[in-house]
Amino acid sequence: MSPLLTSLSGDPEIEALLSDEAMIAHMVQFERALAMAEGELGMIPEDHARRIHQELKDFAPDMARLAAGMERDGVVVPELVRQMRAVLGEAGGSLHRGTTSQDVIDSAMAMQVGAILPVFSARIDGLLNGFDALAARHEGQNLLAHTRMQRALPIPVAAKVKTWRAPLRRAGAMLSEAGRELTMVQLGGPVGDGGSFKGNDRLLAEQLGPRLGLGVAPPWHSERDRVAGFAAELAKVSGVLGKFGTDVSLMAQGEHGQVRVEEAGASSAIADKANPVAAEVLVALARYNAGSLGTLHQALVHENESSGAALTLEWLVLPQMIQTTGASLRLAQRLLDRISF
Amino acid sequence: MSPLLTSLSGDPEIEALLSDEAMIAHMVQFERALAMAEGELGMIPEDHARRIHQELKDFAPDMARLAAGMERDGVVVPELVRQMRAVLGEAGGSLHRGTTSQDVIDSAMAMQVGAILPVFSARIDGLLNGFDALAARHEGQNLLAHTRMQRALPIPVAAKVKTWRAPLRRAGAMLSEAGRELTMVQLGGPVGDGGSFKGNDRLLAEQLGPRLGLGVAPPWHSERDRVAGFAAELAKVSGVLGKFGTDVSLMAQGEHGQVRVEEAGASSAIADKANPVAAEVLVALARYNAGSLGTLHQALVHENESSGAALTLEWLVLPQMIQTTGASLRLAQRLLDRISF
Amino acid sequence: MSPLLTSLSGDPEIEALLSDEAMIAHMVQFERALAMAEGELGMIPEDHARRIHQELKDFAPDMARLAAGMERDGVVVPELVRQMRAVLGEAGGSLHRGTTSQDVIDSAMAMQVGAILPVFSARIDGLLNGFDALAARHEGQNLLAHTRMQRALPIPVAAKVKTWRAPLRRAGAMLSEAGRELTMVQLGGPVGDGGSFKGNDRLLAEQLGPRLGLGVAPPWHSERDRVAGFAAELAKVSGVLGKFGTDVSLMAQGEHGQVRVEEAGASSAIADKANPVAAEVLVALARYNAGSLGTLHQALVHENESSGAALTLEWLVLPQMIQTTGASLRLAQRLLDRISF
Amino acid sequence: MSPLLTSLSGDPEIEALLSDEAMIAHMVQFERALAMAEGELGMIPEDHARRIHQELKDFAPDMARLAAGMERDGVVVPELVRQMRAVLGEAGGSLHRGTTSQDVIDSAMAMQVGAILPVFSARIDGLLNGFDALAARHEGQNLLAHTRMQRALPIPVAAKVKTWRAPLRRAGAMLSEAGRELTMVQLGGPVGDGGSFKGNDRLLAEQLGPRLGLGVAPPWHSERDRVAGFAAELAKVSGVLGKFGTDVSLMAQGEHGQVRVEEAGASSAIADKANPVAAEVLVALARYNAGSLGTLHQALVHENESSGAALTLEWLVLPQMIQTTGASLRLAQRLLDRISF
Repeated sequence: MSPLLTSLSGDPEIEALLSDEAMIAHMVQFERALAMAEGELGMIPEDHARRIHQELKDFAPDMARLAAGMERDGVVVPELVRQMRAVLGEAGGSLHRGTTSQDVIDSAMAMQVGAILPVFSARIDGLLNGFDALAARHEGQNLLAHTRMQRALPIPVAAKVKTWRAPLRRAGAMLSEAGRELTMVQLGGPVGDGGSFKGNDRLLAEQLGPRLGLGVAPPWHSERDRVAGFAAELAKVSGVLGKFGTDVSLMAQGEHGQVRVEEAGASSAIADKANPVAAEVLVALARYNAGSLGTLHQALVHENESSGAALTLEWLVLPQMIQTTGASLRLAQRLLDRISF
Repeated sequence: MSPLLTSLSGDPEIEALLSDEAMIAHMVQFERALAMAEGELGMIPEDHARRIHQELKDFAPDMARLAAGMERDGVVVPELVRQMRAVLGEAGGSLHRGTTSQDVIDSAMAMQVGAILPVFSARIDGLLNGFDALAARHEGQNLLAHTRMQRALPIPVAAKVKTWRAPLRRAGAMLSEAGRELTMVQLGGPVGDGGSFKGNDRLLAEQLGPRLGLGVAPPWHSERDRVAGFAAELAKVSGVLGKFGTDVSLMAQGEHGQVRVEEAGASSAIADKANPVAAEVLVALARYNAGSLGTLHQALVHENESSGAALTLEWLVLPQMIQTTGASLRLAQRLLDRISF
Repeated sequence: MSPLLTSLSGDPEIEALLSDEAMIAHMVQFERALAMAEGELGMIPEDHARRIHQELKDFAPDMARLAAGMERDGVVVPELVRQMRAVLGEAGGSLHRGTTSQDVIDSAMAMQVGAILPVFSARIDGLLNGFDALAARHEGQNLLAHTRMQRALPIPVAAKVKTWRAPLRRAGAMLSEAGRELTMVQLGGPVGDGGSFKGNDRLLAEQLGPRLGLGVAPPWHSERDRVAGFAAELAKVSGVLGKFGTDVSLMAQGEHGQVRVEEAGASSAIADKANPVAAEVLVALARYNAGSLGTLHQALVHENESSGAALTLEWLVLPQMIQTTGASLRLAQRLLDRISF
Repeated sequence: MSPLLTSLSGDPEIEALLSDEAMIAHMVQFERALAMAEGELGMIPEDHARRIHQELKDFAPDMARLAAGMERDGVVVPELVRQMRAVLGEAGGSLHRGTTSQDVIDSAMAMQVGAILPVFSARIDGLLNGFDALAARHEGQNLLAHTRMQRALPIPVAAKVKTWRAPLRRAGAMLSEAGRELTMVQLGGPVGDGGSFKGNDRLLAEQLGPRLGLGVAPPWHSERDRVAGFAAELAKVSGVLGKFGTDVSLMAQGEHGQVRVEEAGASSAIADKANPVAAEVLVALARYNAGSLGTLHQALVHENESSGAALTLEWLVLPQMIQTTGASLRLAQRLLDRISF
């Protein structure tokens, strides 16, 4: 998304949490924590473990060479490991022991999601409170309900607001739950069965999880239901906010005048026209995430122990869905702050 | 889906549970139960309630006229109510009291889903047991793992089978949960706020739920997250089975010979060729449901109190997704019964 | 689609042209024409060719056994060939010579599309004329334009109607063109290179094409751009009609009253409410076909010389898209016949 | 797409042509050309026209304030016009005369596409030549065909290569054609009917088109079939390249060894493993664009004279599809340069 479009329909705060820099930092963190855990279990020399943990604390990768490695290998990890080893001397041989690219990538992705979940939760709480306040401000007031785009009967403002709030509350709770299922440490080794850790895979995962802020689960390399499930909740959140957006768009029609939106956007051609921009963008983001969800679910068809095609498809879609959901929450708050009946 | 295609990629058992006849029967059931509940609460005369309950027990609608009504009104309910009233005499005036088409349709849809959930659960249990048995039969045996379509290292059969079984187990549990969230009575009246039931809406819903085998929830006319969430779990189930299908297709390649499939399909041109048909169809169904999920989520953008466009879109997509999921489960069992390593 | 839903959002005329019976009839037609052509080229005995042509003229297959074959083989052709051979005696050995299931299936599909194209063309012409008449009836009259859901400035009725008519005209022309590209004979033999016809593949295709009402092209077994391109034009047709539907829905809002729709649908709860059903369904069909197009394009990723997974996905999606497009055209005409400004 | 991911699956050359800076430059170009044409027609004072043309030649906007305007107004144009007027003095009143944001945005988008089309054409030509050369290098050589993932019969290399080349040739031709249909000047004024140009709209469009390198067409504000049609050809191009990618992935399986890929990617865990990265990414890009196409077609349902929701959805999807298509072409060439049989 270009910077201009980001200012309309993106989310800079979330974008930063999804940046390459953030991801690489999580990856380095994973390798450091793994080395410490393997050192404690005697799988690598303890001094190697300490050296790895110490030396990589402020590791600054050569991003251009990482990009070249990404293009060549399809994943960034081989080149990242090479760069890390270059500063580790002899201890470099103990780095990345037993593990594989996908362990690093999936764990780092889980850490990114883990950092984003509280932001989303706080925003959703803000919206739920905002909806309550909106209903309270208009207690005793009615709106005209519309079914099939036609005038029907009056309903209390509270009943209208409930149709926006209740699904967001449910979707928020399920997003947290799906987030919990996704933020699991990944530790399976080259073929995803944990066999490369010589019987220590469960122990290592149990140590790694807490150190990385992740839950503990058996390896899930080719079991992408966690990713699909999380994406579904993202699309649900932006979808229910799209309903809020379409309702406001319809109610804000001049002929209806059922809602006032402060600070609506200007037209370059018609001087006094006020366009409820955020409401429209919420609809666009909902439709975007809906379609993206269908694309992401294609990646459930994951060939054998690791599919480059299916994983690349996830990387193309999931970060965009996360950012879109963030933008939906951001714009819904902006809209909510500006409407009254 | 045509009968021939149904025999390949459909599910006659599920199709029957989704039939017009089944749906209309649920609708009649809803009206009978509502009348009884309203009679008990004194909202309609008790003899009307009894008459409605009695008289409609074996109600046989004129399906051709229902179809004409569906085309005219966009929903089947106005014509169905007309036909029911025609056999009820004076009691007809008490039929459908306070309620509206969408209450009837959504509740009937929930009842259909309620009838299908145990079928899906039983099939999933059958598959989980089958995967266990498959792993047990091949204990101590290895397969060659493949990452990025390339030979990697050997893994135990149990580790391979786990990549099929574990996500299905999780998806099955979440399908049940999402099914529970969807099989809620719908009772909101013309504008979905329950106002037409004169303060009795919660009481009525509490009575209707158990009578119809549904849970009790506030009206959810325009809150379609329940539908979207259920569809997401359907797509997840067929998606993880698509992974099983693609793995078997790849392992069954003659050059690999890592799996034997009994009773594979014939070619019309090459005499001794054996095609693992069910495995391929599992992939097709997974991709179909993935895309359909994206389409269905568009219906979250539901205009105001009831959107004819969004509801029609649900009706076009959800039954197909349910049938596709049923077919995935059916074919996965067929495939599982025929493979060995 | 169930019969009730078909009455709302389906198309019985198109459904009949897509039926199993129609498809099987095309397949038999293909085998008869192929035998005649091969007889003339001396590839099979001329009396066999005549016998095949004669005997299969009124061939009535056992549909139940075809369904069983479809399930077993993934395609209907092996069982269909078996049944045809059973009535052909010795000539049966000359049936299906050099060809393969996919030749038969794709050619029959092309013939189905060929039968549907003139129906679509006629309907589109009807709509284009109808839009002209609508504009003429309201010459000199203005409507209030709306940008971003807000009142803007008056525009002539003709300018409004042009936004519905012009894209339909363009889409109709491109649908015809894409239809021409798809209605090509398929004759490639078991691996799609024509090699099984002993150098006669081009000659045979040139003879078969005209006999079957199809164009002549090199084999296109695994080149599915023709299918994807045709589907894109279907979605474009229903999409531009969805714009017509959404505009009418918005203009028909009681607060706007910019369009009158005769014979609008009834509500079961609110007596005098008129719902512009066809307009809403046009929107639903547009969204359905849009999403389906995304799903169908997944089938461009067609593995090697023939992919059971990709072909099954086409069969699941394309007929539905064709029927949906038919329904869009049908409902757009219905709506157009009933609106005035 | 993050820089790292771009290095794998993006296209820096295309990204630059799609940048905000490029788009703003096109927009300024549009305003300059419009002023000149309006000056010649006497619609604005000639010295104003000259001043606008001169003064804005090297106009450097304040991008931060453009971003703020984009967020506020939903489009960048009102703020851009404000900034341009600030440097124009009295002539500023003649800037943007009769036109509206969407004219500027759509024309600029058409100019961006116009700049990208020759890049795509050249790349497609390169691939077509490369496929010819590949077939020529392996003349007389056979490959083993696979149908339904199973070994079938040998086919000539030329027949295999033709299944990659022929659909790309057709898709390339249709992409050019769809590009021609999209690269049309947009000039409709505030409500898209050209009425604000006082009878000069056709004349102005005829002058603007050639100056901007665009074709001439009546205003197409709410007629988005041009956009949808272009996107369909993008998805077709990446889709047929996805078939190339999946074939190479399958043929490169170690058990098959039907294709050699030089410089395949490294694994971080298994030393001598070679992963055909570009082939896998081609599959991912095909699936991504397929799904995106379905999302974009939702924007055909464009409300009335200008829909903020539908346009924003286009902006979210189309540039990504263009970049993905560019990346597909880039990676296909990379792969083609490295394979032999």
